[in-house]
Amino acid sequence: MMEKVFIQLIKETLNSCYIGDDCAYLKDLGIVISQDSLVEGVHFLRDKITPWQLGRKTAMVNISDICASGAEPAYMTVALSLPKGTNSDFVKEFYEGLKSACGTVEIVGGDITAADKIFISATAIGKTAGRNISSRGHAQIGQKIIVSGPHGSSGAGLKLLLGGKPTPENLIKAHLEPVAQREFSVKIATTQKTPYAMMDTSDGLMDALSQISEASGVQMSVDFAKIPFNEEIKMFSDWRELVLFGGEDYQIIATVDTPPAAATVIGEVRKGSGVNLNGKIYSKELIESKIFKHI
Amino acid sequence: MMEKVFIQLIKETLNSCYIGDDCAYLKDLGIVISQDSLVEGVHFLRDKITPWQLGRKTAMVNISDICASGAEPAYMTVALSLPKGTNSDFVKEFYEGLKSACGTVEIVGGDITAADKIFISATAIGKTAGRNISSRGHAQIGQKIIVSGPHGSSGAGLKLLLGGKPTPENLIKAHLEPVAQREFSVKIATTQKTPYAMMDTSDGLMDALSQISEASGVQMSVDFAKIPFNEEIKMFSDWRELVLFGGEDYQIIATVDTPPAAATVIGEVRKGSGVNLNGKIYSKELIESKIFKHI
Repeated sequence: MMEKVFIQLIKETLNSCYIGDDCAYLKDLGIVISQDSLVEGVHFLRDKITPWQLGRKTAMVNISDICASGAEPAYMTVALSLPKGTNSDFVKEFYEGLKSACGTVEIVGGDITAADKIFISATAIGKTAGRNISSRGHAQIGQKIIVSGPHGSSGAGLKLLLGGKPTPENLIKAHLEPVAQREFSVKIATTQKTPYAMMDTSDGLMDALSQISEASGVQMSVDFAKIPFNEEIKMFSDWRELVLFGGEDYQIIATVDTPPAAATVIGEVRKGSGVNLNGKIYSKELIESKIFKHI
Repeated sequence: MMEKVFIQLIKETLNSCYIGDDCAYLKDLGIVISQDSLVEGVHFLRDKITPWQLGRKTAMVNISDICASGAEPAYMTVALSLPKGTNSDFVKEFYEGLKSACGTVEIVGGDITAADKIFISATAIGKTAGRNISSRGHAQIGQKIIVSGPHGSSGAGLKLLLGGKPTPENLIKAHLEPVAQREFSVKIATTQKTPYAMMDTSDGLMDALSQISEASGVQMSVDFAKIPFNEEIKMFSDWRELVLFGGEDYQIIATVDTPPAAATVIGEVRKGSGVNLNGKIYSKELIESKIFKHI
Protein backbone atom coordinates (compact mmCIF):
# COMPACT_ATOMS: atom_id res chain seq x y z
CA MET A 1 0.00 0.00 0.00
CA MET A 2 2.71 2.49 -0.98
CA GLU A 3 -0.04 4.49 -2.73
CA LYS A 4 -1.65 5.54 0.56
CA VAL A 5 1.76 6.26 2.18
CA PHE A 6 2.69 8.46 -0.78
CA ILE A 7 -0.66 10.30 -0.72
CA GLN A 8 -0.08 11.14 2.96
CA LEU A 9 3.44 12.36 2.14
CA ILE A 10 2.12 14.48 -0.74
CA LYS A 11 -0.55 16.02 1.52
CA GLU A 12 2.14 16.95 4.03
CA THR A 13 4.51 18.32 1.36
CA LEU A 14 1.83 20.42 -0.31
CA ASN A 15 -0.05 21.34 2.86
CA SER A 16 -3.17 21.35 0.68
CA CYS A 17 -6.78 21.37 1.85
CA TYR A 18 -7.92 19.87 -1.45
CA ILE A 19 -6.39 16.41 -1.53
CA GLY A 20 -8.51 13.56 -0.12
CA ASP A 21 -11.72 13.34 -2.17
CA ASP A 22 -12.20 11.81 -5.62
CA CYS A 23 -12.48 15.38 -6.90
CA ALA A 24 -11.14 18.75 -5.80
CA TYR A 25 -13.91 21.31 -5.40
CA LEU A 26 -12.75 24.70 -6.75
CA LYS A 27 -15.45 26.94 -5.35
CA ASP A 28 -14.22 30.17 -7.00
CA LEU A 29 -14.64 28.56 -10.43
CA GLY A 30 -17.81 26.60 -9.64
CA ILE A 31 -16.19 23.34 -10.74
CA VAL A 32 -14.80 20.06 -9.47
CA ILE A 33 -11.75 18.47 -11.09
CA SER A 34 -10.42 14.93 -10.99
CA GLN A 35 -7.59 13.04 -12.67
CA ASP A 36 -7.25 9.25 -12.97
CA SER A 37 -4.70 7.07 -14.75
CA LEU A 38 -4.93 3.64 -16.37
CA VAL A 39 -1.59 1.89 -16.81
CA GLU A 40 -0.99 -1.22 -18.93
CA GLY A 41 0.14 -4.12 -16.75
CA VAL A 42 -1.24 -2.41 -13.62
CA HIS A 43 -4.87 -1.54 -14.41
CA PHE A 44 -5.40 -3.59 -17.54
CA LEU A 45 -3.80 -6.27 -19.72
CA ARG A 46 -3.50 -5.44 -23.40
CA ASP A 47 -4.81 -8.83 -24.57
CA LYS A 48 -7.88 -8.84 -22.28
CA ILE A 49 -9.52 -5.57 -23.31
CA THR A 50 -10.28 -4.07 -26.72
CA PRO A 51 -9.16 -0.51 -27.60
CA TRP A 52 -12.86 0.49 -27.69
CA GLN A 53 -13.44 -0.93 -24.20
CA LEU A 54 -10.28 0.75 -22.93
CA GLY A 55 -11.43 4.12 -24.25
CA ARG A 56 -14.90 3.60 -22.80
CA LYS A 57 -13.53 2.56 -19.42
CA THR A 58 -11.18 5.57 -19.34
CA ALA A 59 -14.16 7.89 -19.75
CA MET A 60 -16.38 5.99 -17.28
CA VAL A 61 -13.72 5.90 -14.56
CA ASN A 62 -13.26 9.65 -14.76
CA ILE A 63 -16.96 10.46 -15.11
CA SER A 64 -17.56 8.24 -12.07
CA ASP A 65 -15.21 10.43 -10.01
CA ILE A 66 -17.19 13.53 -10.97
CA CYS A 67 -20.46 11.76 -10.14
CA ALA A 68 -19.01 10.82 -6.74
CA SER A 69 -18.75 14.52 -5.93
CA GLY A 70 -22.33 15.21 -6.97
CA ALA A 71 -21.29 17.57 -9.78
CA GLU A 72 -22.41 17.43 -13.42
CA PRO A 73 -19.72 15.84 -15.66
CA ALA A 74 -18.98 18.41 -18.37
CA TYR A 75 -15.49 18.25 -19.91
CA MET A 76 -12.58 15.87 -20.18
CA THR A 77 -8.96 15.94 -21.36
CA VAL A 78 -7.16 12.71 -22.20
CA ALA A 79 -3.42 12.04 -22.32
CA LEU A 80 -2.48 8.87 -24.16
CA SER A 81 1.02 7.42 -24.38
CA LEU A 82 1.50 4.60 -26.84
CA PRO A 83 4.26 2.15 -27.75
CA LYS A 84 5.97 2.60 -31.12
CA GLY A 85 4.15 0.73 -33.82
CA THR A 86 0.67 1.31 -32.38
CA ASN A 87 -1.53 1.69 -35.42
CA SER A 88 -4.19 4.22 -36.32
CA ASP A 89 -6.98 1.67 -35.76
CA PHE A 90 -6.09 1.46 -32.08
CA VAL A 91 -6.29 5.24 -31.70
CA LYS A 92 -9.53 5.49 -33.65
CA GLU A 93 -11.24 2.69 -31.70
CA PHE A 94 -9.97 4.02 -28.38
CA TYR A 95 -11.46 7.46 -29.08
CA GLU A 96 -14.69 5.95 -30.38
CA GLY A 97 -15.01 4.03 -27.10
CA LEU A 98 -14.22 7.19 -25.18
CA LYS A 99 -16.85 9.11 -27.08
CA SER A 100 -19.47 6.38 -26.62
CA ALA A 101 -19.27 6.84 -22.85
CA CYS A 102 -19.26 10.61 -22.85
CA GLY A 103 -22.85 11.58 -23.55
CA THR A 104 -22.91 15.32 -22.92
CA VAL A 105 -19.30 15.35 -21.71
CA GLU A 106 -17.01 17.03 -24.25
CA ILE A 107 -13.43 15.91 -24.80
CA VAL A 108 -11.55 19.18 -25.20
CA GLY A 109 -7.89 18.27 -25.34
CA GLY A 110 -5.05 16.24 -23.97
CA ASP A 111 -1.70 14.97 -25.07
CA ILE A 112 -0.35 12.13 -27.15
CA THR A 113 3.20 10.82 -26.71
CA ALA A 114 5.33 7.73 -27.12
CA ALA A 115 5.95 5.24 -24.27
CA ASP A 116 7.06 1.63 -23.76
CA LYS A 117 3.62 0.58 -22.58
CA ILE A 118 0.15 2.10 -22.90
CA PHE A 119 -0.40 4.82 -20.36
CA ILE A 120 -3.63 6.79 -20.12
CA SER A 121 -4.40 9.68 -17.81
CA ALA A 122 -7.65 11.61 -18.09
CA THR A 123 -8.89 14.69 -16.29
CA ALA A 124 -12.57 15.42 -15.89
CA ILE A 125 -14.29 18.67 -14.98
CA GLY A 126 -17.75 18.87 -13.44
CA LYS A 127 -20.08 21.83 -12.96
CA THR A 128 -21.38 22.43 -9.44
CA ALA A 129 -24.27 24.86 -10.05
CA GLY A 130 -27.47 23.57 -8.40
CA ARG A 131 -25.66 20.65 -6.76
CA ASN A 132 -24.88 19.89 -3.10
CA ILE A 133 -21.22 18.79 -3.40
CA SER A 134 -20.15 15.84 -1.25
CA SER A 135 -17.02 15.13 0.73
CA ARG A 136 -15.71 11.95 2.32
CA GLY A 137 -15.45 13.94 5.51
CA HIS A 138 -19.14 14.89 5.62
CA ALA A 139 -20.71 11.70 7.01
CA GLN A 140 -22.98 12.50 9.99
CA ILE A 141 -23.93 10.12 12.81
CA GLY A 142 -27.44 8.75 12.20
CA GLN A 143 -27.30 9.04 8.40
CA LYS A 144 -28.23 6.00 6.32
CA ILE A 145 -25.49 4.33 4.26
CA ILE A 146 -26.74 3.71 0.73
CA VAL A 147 -25.35 2.17 -2.45
CA SER A 148 -26.41 2.55 -6.07
CA GLY A 149 -26.17 -1.11 -7.07
CA PRO A 150 -24.52 -4.54 -6.85
CA HIS A 151 -20.95 -5.20 -5.75
CA GLY A 152 -18.59 -8.02 -6.65
CA SER A 153 -19.54 -8.41 -10.33
CA SER A 154 -16.46 -6.63 -11.69
CA GLY A 155 -14.09 -8.56 -9.41
CA ALA A 156 -15.78 -11.82 -10.49
CA GLY A 157 -15.45 -10.79 -14.13
CA LEU A 158 -11.75 -10.11 -13.64
CA LYS A 159 -11.26 -13.59 -12.11
CA LEU A 160 -13.01 -15.13 -15.12
CA LEU A 161 -10.88 -13.12 -17.56
CA LEU A 162 -7.61 -14.01 -15.84
CA GLY A 163 -8.68 -17.66 -15.85
CA GLY A 164 -9.37 -17.51 -19.59
CA LYS A 165 -13.13 -18.06 -19.18
CA PRO A 166 -15.49 -16.23 -21.59
CA THR A 167 -18.73 -16.55 -19.53
CA PRO A 168 -20.91 -15.51 -17.77
CA GLU A 169 -20.76 -12.55 -20.14
CA ASN A 170 -22.52 -10.10 -17.84
CA LEU A 171 -19.80 -10.51 -15.19
CA ILE A 172 -17.01 -10.03 -17.74
CA LYS A 173 -18.84 -7.01 -19.11
CA ALA A 174 -19.16 -5.60 -15.58
CA HIS A 175 -15.36 -5.56 -15.46
CA LEU A 176 -14.55 -4.40 -18.99
CA GLU A 177 -17.44 -2.00 -19.51
CA PRO A 178 -18.36 -0.45 -16.18
CA VAL A 179 -21.04 2.24 -16.18
CA ALA A 180 -20.74 5.45 -14.15
CA GLN A 181 -23.78 6.04 -11.91
CA ARG A 182 -24.79 9.44 -13.31
CA GLU A 183 -28.51 9.36 -12.55
CA PHE A 184 -27.99 8.15 -9.01
CA SER A 185 -25.49 10.98 -8.42
CA VAL A 186 -27.91 13.61 -9.75
CA LYS A 187 -30.68 12.35 -7.48
CA ILE A 188 -28.51 12.61 -4.39
CA ALA A 189 -26.83 15.91 -5.21
CA THR A 190 -30.05 17.70 -6.12
CA THR A 191 -32.15 16.45 -3.19
CA GLN A 192 -29.88 16.38 -0.14
CA LYS A 193 -30.19 19.57 1.89
CA THR A 194 -27.46 18.81 4.44
CA PRO A 195 -23.77 17.83 4.18
CA TYR A 196 -23.25 14.21 3.13
CA ALA A 197 -20.43 11.85 2.20
CA MET A 198 -20.28 10.23 -1.24
CA MET A 199 -17.65 8.40 -3.27
CA ASP A 200 -17.40 5.67 -5.86
CA THR A 201 -16.41 2.13 -4.98
CA SER A 202 -13.57 1.90 -7.52
CA ASP A 203 -11.25 0.32 -4.95
CA GLY A 204 -13.96 -1.85 -3.37
CA LEU A 205 -16.90 -1.37 -1.02
CA MET A 206 -14.96 -1.95 2.20
CA ASP A 207 -12.26 0.48 1.10
CA ALA A 208 -14.91 3.15 0.44
CA LEU A 209 -16.55 2.52 3.82
CA SER A 210 -13.15 2.78 5.48
CA GLN A 211 -12.24 6.00 3.65
CA ILE A 212 -15.48 7.68 4.75
CA SER A 213 -15.08 6.38 8.31
CA GLU A 214 -11.55 7.75 8.51
CA ALA A 215 -12.26 11.14 6.89
CA SER A 216 -15.46 11.74 8.90
CA GLY A 217 -14.32 10.24 12.23
CA VAL A 218 -17.32 7.92 12.41
CA GLN A 219 -18.13 4.21 12.39
CA MET A 220 -19.78 2.78 9.31
CA SER A 221 -22.15 0.02 10.40
CA VAL A 222 -23.19 -2.34 7.60
CA ASP A 223 -25.40 -5.45 7.37
CA PHE A 224 -23.91 -7.83 4.79
CA ALA A 225 -27.34 -9.28 3.98
CA LYS A 226 -28.46 -5.89 2.68
CA ILE A 227 -25.59 -5.43 0.17
CA PRO A 228 -26.89 -6.10 -3.36
CA PHE A 229 -24.91 -8.50 -5.55
CA ASN A 230 -25.39 -10.61 -8.66
CA GLU A 231 -26.27 -14.23 -7.71
CA GLU A 232 -23.94 -15.55 -10.42
CA ILE A 233 -20.86 -14.56 -8.43
CA LYS A 234 -21.68 -17.45 -6.07
CA MET A 235 -19.84 -19.66 -8.58
CA PHE A 236 -16.76 -18.48 -6.70
CA SER A 237 -16.21 -19.87 -3.19
CA ASP A 238 -14.86 -16.47 -2.06
CA TRP A 239 -17.85 -14.54 -3.42
CA ARG A 240 -18.33 -12.71 -0.10
CA GLU A 241 -14.78 -11.35 -0.42
CA LEU A 242 -15.62 -10.21 -3.96
CA VAL A 243 -18.65 -8.29 -2.68
CA LEU A 244 -16.64 -6.62 0.07
CA PHE A 245 -13.19 -6.17 -1.46
CA GLY A 246 -13.58 -6.62 -5.23
CA GLY A 247 -12.99 -3.26 -6.91
CA GLU A 248 -14.05 -1.49 -10.09
CA ASP A 249 -17.80 -1.88 -9.75
CA TYR A 250 -17.95 1.95 -9.96
CA GLN A 251 -21.10 2.00 -7.90
CA ILE A 252 -21.75 4.97 -5.63
CA ILE A 253 -21.86 4.85 -1.86
CA ALA A 254 -23.26 7.73 0.17
CA THR A 255 -24.39 8.63 3.69
CA VAL A 256 -27.65 10.58 3.58
CA ASP A 257 -30.50 11.74 5.77
CA THR A 258 -33.16 10.93 3.20
CA PRO A 259 -32.40 7.98 0.89
CA PRO A 260 -33.94 8.32 -2.59
CA ALA A 261 -36.18 5.49 -3.84
CA ALA A 262 -33.47 4.13 -6.17
CA ALA A 263 -31.03 3.56 -3.32
CA THR A 264 -30.38 0.40 -1.32
CA VAL A 265 -29.82 1.10 2.38
CA ILE A 266 -27.03 -1.17 3.68
CA GLY A 267 -26.43 0.35 7.10
CA GLU A 268 -26.02 3.51 9.11
CA VAL A 269 -23.40 5.93 10.38
CA ARG A 270 -22.58 5.52 14.08
CA LYS A 271 -20.33 7.01 16.68
CA GLY A 272 -16.97 5.24 16.75
CA SER A 273 -14.38 4.24 14.16
CA GLY A 274 -13.75 1.66 11.44
CA VAL A 275 -16.29 -0.47 9.62
CA ASN A 276 -18.72 -2.55 11.69
CA LEU A 277 -19.78 -5.49 9.52
CA ASN A 278 -22.47 -7.50 11.32
CA GLY A 279 -20.76 -6.82 14.63
CA LYS A 280 -17.16 -7.42 13.52
CA ILE A 281 -15.04 -4.28 13.50
CA TYR A 282 -12.70 -3.85 10.51
CA SER A 283 -9.96 -1.31 11.21
CA LYS A 284 -8.44 0.84 8.46
CA GLU A 285 -5.26 -1.29 8.66
CA LEU A 286 -7.15 -4.58 8.28
CA ILE A 287 -9.08 -3.29 5.27
CA GLU A 288 -5.97 -1.88 3.60
CA SER A 289 -4.24 -5.26 3.96
CA LYS A 290 -7.00 -6.85 1.88
CA ILE A 291 -7.44 -4.11 -0.68
CA PHE A 292 -8.25 -4.83 -4.29
CA LYS A 293 -5.49 -5.12 -6.89
CA HIS A 294 -6.68 -3.98 -10.30
CA ILE A 295 -5.23 -6.95 -12.22
CA MET B 1 5.60 12.09 -36.70
CA MET B 2 2.83 9.66 -35.73
CA GLU B 3 1.84 12.18 -33.03
CA LYS B 4 0.54 14.68 -35.58
CA VAL B 5 -1.17 11.93 -37.62
CA PHE B 6 -2.91 10.69 -34.47
CA ILE B 7 -3.98 14.20 -33.44
CA GLN B 8 -5.63 14.66 -36.85
CA LEU B 9 -7.37 11.30 -36.46
CA ILE B 10 -8.56 12.22 -32.95
CA LYS B 11 -9.92 15.55 -34.22
CA GLU B 12 -11.88 13.71 -36.91
CA THR B 13 -13.16 11.04 -34.50
CA LEU B 14 -14.28 13.57 -31.90
CA ASN B 15 -15.39 16.26 -34.35
CA SER B 16 -14.31 18.74 -31.67
CA CYS B 17 -13.80 22.48 -32.05
CA TYR B 18 -11.47 22.56 -29.04
CA ILE B 19 -8.46 20.50 -30.09
CA GLY B 20 -5.57 22.41 -31.69
CA ASP B 21 -4.29 24.95 -29.17
CA ASP B 22 -2.04 24.37 -26.15
CA CYS B 23 -5.15 24.91 -24.04
CA ALA B 24 -8.88 24.42 -24.55
CA TYR B 25 -10.83 27.60 -23.79
CA LEU B 26 -14.05 26.70 -21.92
CA LYS B 27 -15.92 29.99 -22.19
CA ASP B 28 -18.93 28.94 -20.10
CA LEU B 29 -16.64 28.28 -17.14
CA GLY B 30 -14.24 31.19 -17.73
CA ILE B 31 -11.26 28.85 -17.77
CA VAL B 32 -8.65 27.29 -20.02
CA ILE B 33 -7.46 23.72 -19.46
CA SER B 34 -4.36 21.90 -20.65
CA GLN B 35 -2.81 18.48 -20.05
CA ASP B 36 0.80 17.47 -20.73
CA SER B 37 2.68 14.25 -20.04
CA LEU B 38 6.34 13.54 -19.28
CA VAL B 39 7.41 9.96 -19.92
CA GLU B 40 10.67 8.35 -18.75
CA GLY B 41 12.77 7.34 -21.73
CA VAL B 42 10.82 9.66 -24.04
CA HIS B 43 10.91 13.10 -22.37
CA PHE B 44 13.60 12.54 -19.77
CA LEU B 45 16.25 10.06 -18.65
CA ARG B 46 16.10 9.04 -15.01
CA ASP B 47 19.85 9.45 -14.45
CA LYS B 48 20.06 12.93 -16.03
CA ILE B 49 17.48 14.80 -13.96
CA THR B 50 16.86 14.96 -10.20
CA PRO B 51 13.39 14.26 -8.74
CA TRP B 52 13.23 17.95 -7.68
CA GLN B 53 14.03 19.10 -11.24
CA LEU B 54 11.50 16.65 -12.66
CA GLY B 55 8.77 17.99 -10.38
CA ARG B 56 9.72 21.54 -11.21
CA LYS B 57 9.77 20.88 -14.95
CA THR B 58 6.37 19.13 -14.77
CA ALA B 59 4.88 22.27 -13.25
CA MET B 60 6.67 24.67 -15.60
CA VAL B 61 5.68 22.76 -18.74
CA ASN B 62 2.03 22.87 -17.75
CA ILE B 63 2.10 26.46 -16.50
CA SER B 64 3.75 27.40 -19.81
CA ASP B 65 0.75 26.00 -21.72
CA ILE B 66 -1.62 28.16 -19.68
CA CYS B 67 0.61 31.21 -20.25
CA ALA B 68 0.54 30.47 -23.98
CA SER B 69 -3.21 31.00 -23.94
CA GLY B 70 -2.92 34.31 -22.10
CA ALA B 71 -4.85 33.01 -19.06
CA GLU B 72 -3.76 33.21 -15.41
CA PRO B 73 -2.36 29.85 -14.17
CA ALA B 74 -4.46 28.93 -11.12
CA TYR B 75 -4.74 25.19 -10.37
CA MET B 76 -3.02 21.94 -11.25
CA THR B 77 -3.62 18.21 -10.81
CA VAL B 78 -0.74 15.76 -11.13
CA ALA B 79 -0.86 12.03 -11.91
CA LEU B 80 2.34 10.19 -11.10
CA SER B 81 3.02 6.54 -11.91
CA LEU B 82 6.12 5.04 -10.32
CA PRO B 83 8.04 1.79 -10.59
CA LYS B 84 7.92 -0.58 -7.62
CA GLY B 85 10.63 0.23 -5.13
CA THR B 86 10.53 3.99 -5.68
CA ASN B 87 11.22 5.44 -2.26
CA SER B 88 9.52 8.20 -0.30
CA ASP B 89 12.44 10.59 -0.89
CA PHE B 90 11.73 10.57 -4.62
CA VAL B 91 8.08 11.45 -4.04
CA LYS B 92 8.92 14.15 -1.48
CA GLU B 93 11.58 15.80 -3.67
CA PHE B 94 9.36 15.59 -6.77
CA TYR B 95 6.53 17.40 -4.99
CA GLU B 96 8.92 19.95 -3.48
CA GLY B 97 10.18 20.73 -6.99
CA LEU B 98 6.62 20.92 -8.23
CA LYS B 99 5.69 23.31 -5.45
CA SER B 100 8.77 25.49 -6.04
CA ALA B 101 7.55 26.26 -9.56
CA CYS B 102 3.94 26.86 -8.68
CA GLY B 103 3.91 30.30 -7.07
CA THR B 104 0.22 31.12 -6.76
CA VAL B 105 -0.81 27.94 -8.62
CA GLU B 106 -2.39 25.42 -6.25
CA ILE B 107 -1.98 21.66 -6.67
CA VAL B 108 -5.43 20.31 -5.89
CA GLY B 109 -5.30 16.61 -6.70
CA GLY B 110 -4.21 13.89 -9.05
CA ASP B 111 -3.48 10.22 -8.93
CA ILE B 112 -0.64 7.95 -7.90
CA THR B 113 -0.22 4.46 -9.33
CA ALA B 114 2.37 1.81 -10.07
CA ALA B 115 4.06 1.48 -13.49
CA ASP B 116 7.19 -0.03 -15.06
CA LYS B 117 8.67 3.39 -15.75
CA ILE B 118 8.01 6.86 -14.42
CA PHE B 119 5.02 8.44 -16.07
CA ILE B 120 3.78 11.92 -15.22
CA SER B 121 0.72 13.67 -16.57
CA ALA B 122 -0.38 17.02 -15.22
CA THR B 123 -3.43 19.12 -15.96
CA ALA B 124 -3.42 22.88 -15.45
CA ILE B 125 -6.36 25.26 -15.21
CA GLY B 126 -6.12 28.99 -15.96
CA LYS B 127 -8.56 31.80 -15.27
CA THR B 128 -9.53 33.98 -18.21
CA ALA B 129 -11.14 37.01 -16.49
CA GLY B 130 -9.57 40.25 -17.77
CA ARG B 131 -7.47 38.42 -20.36
CA ASN B 132 -7.62 38.43 -24.16
CA ILE B 133 -7.27 34.67 -24.85
CA SER B 134 -5.09 33.67 -27.81
CA SER B 135 -5.46 31.00 -30.47
CA ARG B 136 -3.01 29.62 -32.99
CA GLY B 137 -5.59 30.44 -35.63
CA HIS B 138 -5.73 34.15 -34.78
CA ALA B 139 -2.63 35.47 -36.57
CA GLN B 140 -3.51 38.46 -38.76
CA ILE B 141 -1.57 39.66 -41.83
CA GLY B 142 0.59 42.65 -40.90
CA GLN B 143 1.03 41.67 -37.23
CA LYS B 144 4.55 41.57 -35.81
CA ILE B 145 5.98 38.20 -34.76
CA ILE B 146 7.52 38.46 -31.29
CA VAL B 147 9.33 36.13 -28.91
CA SER B 148 9.89 36.36 -25.16
CA GLY B 149 13.54 35.29 -25.13
CA PRO B 150 16.45 33.23 -26.47
CA HIS B 151 16.09 29.94 -28.36
CA GLY B 152 18.50 27.01 -28.63
CA SER B 153 19.77 26.99 -25.03
CA SER B 154 17.69 24.02 -23.92
CA GLY B 155 18.60 21.98 -27.00
CA ALA B 156 22.29 22.80 -26.43
CA GLY B 157 21.94 21.78 -22.77
CA LEU B 158 20.41 18.47 -23.81
CA LYS B 159 23.34 17.80 -26.17
CA LEU B 160 25.79 18.52 -23.34
CA LEU B 161 23.88 16.22 -20.96
CA LEU B 162 23.71 13.35 -23.43
CA GLY B 163 27.45 13.78 -24.10
CA GLY B 164 28.16 13.59 -20.35
CA LYS B 165 29.42 17.20 -20.15
CA PRO B 166 28.63 19.18 -16.95
CA THR B 167 29.21 22.71 -18.35
CA PRO B 168 28.32 25.41 -19.36
CA GLU B 169 25.92 25.19 -16.43
CA ASN B 170 23.48 27.80 -17.71
CA LEU B 171 22.79 25.75 -20.86
CA ILE B 172 22.25 22.57 -18.85
CA LYS B 173 20.00 24.49 -16.47
CA ALA B 174 18.04 25.85 -19.45
CA HIS B 175 17.18 22.24 -20.29
CA LEU B 176 16.59 20.83 -16.81
CA GLU B 177 14.99 23.87 -15.18
CA PRO B 178 13.06 25.80 -17.82
CA VAL B 179 11.03 28.79 -16.66
CA ALA B 180 7.51 29.50 -17.89
CA GLN B 181 7.13 33.04 -19.27
CA ARG B 182 4.36 34.21 -16.96
CA GLU B 183 5.08 37.96 -16.97
CA PHE B 184 5.43 38.08 -20.73
CA SER B 185 2.09 36.30 -21.10
CA VAL B 186 0.33 38.73 -18.74
CA LYS B 187 1.69 41.71 -20.67
CA ILE B 188 0.37 40.40 -23.97
CA ALA B 189 -2.99 39.13 -22.73
CA THR B 190 -3.85 42.30 -20.82
CA THR B 191 -2.79 44.80 -23.49
CA GLN B 192 -3.79 43.34 -26.86
CA LYS B 193 -7.17 44.65 -28.00
CA THR B 194 -7.50 42.49 -31.12
CA PRO B 195 -7.30 38.73 -31.81
CA TYR B 196 -3.74 37.40 -31.78
CA ALA B 197 -1.89 34.08 -32.00
CA MET B 198 0.29 32.88 -29.13
CA MET B 199 1.91 29.57 -28.15
CA ASP B 200 4.97 28.30 -26.36
CA THR B 201 7.97 26.96 -28.24
CA SER B 202 8.09 23.62 -26.44
CA ASP B 203 8.62 21.73 -29.70
CA GLY B 204 10.95 24.35 -31.19
CA LEU B 205 10.66 27.80 -32.74
CA MET B 206 10.16 26.59 -36.33
CA ASP B 207 7.47 24.15 -35.22
CA ALA B 208 5.62 26.97 -33.46
CA LEU B 209 5.90 29.23 -36.50
CA SER B 210 4.61 26.40 -38.70
CA GLN B 211 1.70 25.62 -36.36
CA ILE B 212 0.55 29.26 -36.37
CA SER B 213 1.02 29.51 -40.16
CA GLU B 214 -1.07 26.38 -40.69
CA ALA B 215 -3.84 27.25 -38.21
CA SER B 216 -4.15 30.87 -39.37
CA GLY B 217 -3.61 30.35 -43.11
CA VAL B 218 -0.77 32.88 -43.26
CA GLN B 219 2.95 33.04 -43.96
CA MET B 220 5.26 33.65 -41.01
CA SER B 221 8.20 35.73 -42.27
CA VAL B 222 11.22 35.70 -39.97
CA ASP B 223 14.71 37.25 -40.04
CA PHE B 224 17.17 34.83 -38.44
CA ALA B 225 19.47 37.67 -37.35
CA LYS B 226 16.70 38.99 -35.08
CA ILE B 227 16.14 35.74 -33.14
CA PRO B 228 17.74 36.05 -29.70
CA PHE B 229 20.06 33.24 -28.56
CA ASN B 230 22.80 32.63 -26.00
CA GLU B 231 26.26 33.10 -27.62
CA GLU B 232 27.57 30.03 -25.80
CA ILE B 233 25.57 27.70 -28.03
CA LYS B 234 28.05 28.56 -30.81
CA MET B 235 30.26 25.84 -29.29
CA PHE B 236 28.12 23.52 -31.41
CA SER B 237 28.66 23.60 -35.18
CA ASP B 238 24.91 23.13 -35.72
CA TRP B 239 23.94 26.00 -33.41
CA ARG B 240 21.64 27.54 -36.02
CA GLU B 241 19.65 24.29 -36.08
CA LEU B 242 19.43 24.44 -32.28
CA VAL B 243 17.98 27.96 -32.47
CA LEU B 244 15.42 26.94 -35.07
CA PHE B 245 14.55 23.36 -34.18
CA GLY B 246 15.82 22.77 -30.62
CA GLY B 247 12.81 22.37 -28.36
CA GLU B 248 11.94 22.90 -24.70
CA ASP B 249 13.03 26.53 -24.37
CA TYR B 250 9.45 27.24 -23.25
CA GLN B 251 9.64 30.76 -24.59
CA ILE B 252 6.51 32.38 -25.91
CA ILE B 253 5.91 33.36 -29.51
CA ALA B 254 3.04 35.66 -30.50
CA THR B 255 1.73 37.69 -33.40
CA VAL B 256 0.57 41.11 -32.21
CA ASP B 257 -0.37 44.56 -33.47
CA THR B 258 1.47 46.38 -30.71
CA PRO B 259 4.58 44.62 -29.34
CA PRO B 260 5.26 45.33 -25.65
CA ALA B 261 8.69 46.73 -24.68
CA ALA B 262 9.87 43.35 -23.31
CA ALA B 263 9.34 41.58 -26.64
CA THR B 264 11.84 40.93 -29.42
CA VAL B 265 10.35 41.38 -32.89
CA ILE B 266 11.66 38.63 -35.22
CA GLY B 267 9.43 39.10 -38.24
CA GLU B 268 5.92 39.70 -39.46
CA VAL B 269 2.80 37.88 -40.61
CA ARG B 270 2.30 37.91 -44.38
CA LYS B 271 -0.12 36.61 -46.95
CA GLY B 272 0.86 33.09 -48.09
CA SER B 273 1.78 29.86 -46.35
CA GLY B 274 4.65 28.20 -44.51
CA VAL B 275 7.58 29.85 -42.78
CA ASN B 276 9.68 32.32 -44.77
CA LEU B 277 13.15 32.35 -43.19
CA ASN B 278 15.27 35.02 -44.86
CA GLY B 279 13.64 34.28 -48.20
CA LYS B 280 13.66 30.48 -47.99
CA ILE B 281 10.21 28.94 -47.63
CA TYR B 282 9.89 26.07 -45.14
CA SER B 283 6.74 24.04 -45.74
CA LYS B 284 4.91 22.29 -42.91
CA GLU B 285 6.23 18.94 -44.19
CA LEU B 286 9.86 20.12 -44.25
CA ILE B 287 9.61 21.46 -40.71
CA GLU B 288 7.94 18.33 -39.39
CA SER B 289 10.74 16.21 -40.88
CA LYS B 290 13.25 18.10 -38.76
CA ILE B 291 11.21 18.37 -35.59
CA PHE B 292 12.79 18.18 -32.17
CA LYS B 293 13.00 14.88 -30.29
CA HIS B 294 12.85 15.40 -26.54
CA ILE B 295 15.75 13.09 -25.71
